[in-house]
Amino acid sequence: MSALPPAADAWLEQVAFDAAGLVPVIAQQAPSGRVLMLAWADRAALDETRRTGRATYFSRSRGRIWRKGEESGHLQHVHEIRLDCDGDAVLYLVDQAGGAACHTGRESCFYRRLGDQAWIATDAVRVDPRLMYRKGPP
Amino acid sequence: MSALPPAADAWLEQVAFDAAGLVPVIAQQAPSGRVLMLAWADRAALDETRRTGRATYFSRSRGRIWRKGEESGHLQHVHEIRLDCDGDAVLYLVDQAGGAACHTGRESCFYRRLGDQAWIATDAVRVDPRLMYRKGPP
Repeated sequence: MSALPPAADAWLEQVAFDAAGLVPVIAQQAPSGRVLMLAWADRAALDETRRTGRATYFSRSRGRIWRKGEESGHLQHVHEIRLDCDGDAVLYLVDQAGGAACHTGRESCFYRRLGDQAWIATDAVRVDPRLMYRKGPP
Repeated sequence: MSALPPAADAWLEQVAFDAAGLVPVIAQQAPSGRVLMLAWADRAALDETRRTGRATYFSRSRGRIWRKGEESGHLQHVHEIRLDCDGDAVLYLVDQAGGAACHTGRESCFYRRLGDQAWIATDAVRVDPRLMYRKGPP
């Protein structure tokens, strides 16, 4: 008897989802290396990301799958998906459409740095956030 | 009356710790931009990181504060601490001593990429992991 081929979703079995069925996902801008955001994915979101090449998450606040850019048009095109040694964190290497991953219109959600015991907003706003959430792509 | 100066730990009040008192922390290698790992911190770990300039986490498996490199000697020197827009994720910009953040001896814990529905270990081992966990610095 020959061995069965691996199941198509065997890669998902290697992801250590937490008790809520989620795994943290880091999105990193591939060309610049900038860390854009940290969000969460469930099994379906990871699988959709793989199939579509567009960064898909699970929104904990909305309690549903979240296709990044579905409202703003600022999609993330995924070049590569990586898994860490423990299987409990995922990295999306992306190209961020529109140049702003953050709802504030900044490139990265990590736009505050710790100064003298205070958070200081250091990054420039690239896109007027009022223009980001019109219907359809920008 | 003049306003009171802000409390020294006001910056920690702006961090949205989860129900377990933890926040996810991304460690990124500052010179190269490589994302090294994702770990967790509690309030004490963040404060110690700020005070000492060495990346400190909370180990969920060990249930205690974890000074990165305390066993391997592979410290992370922290150049900058960043907070995201929601306050629920932190980024450490570090310089990783020894060139390996991962216990497997690789630079990054994210050493597997998704190929054709399978995780493929793509990154080279830089340091023999048997040499990483001797007592004291390497």
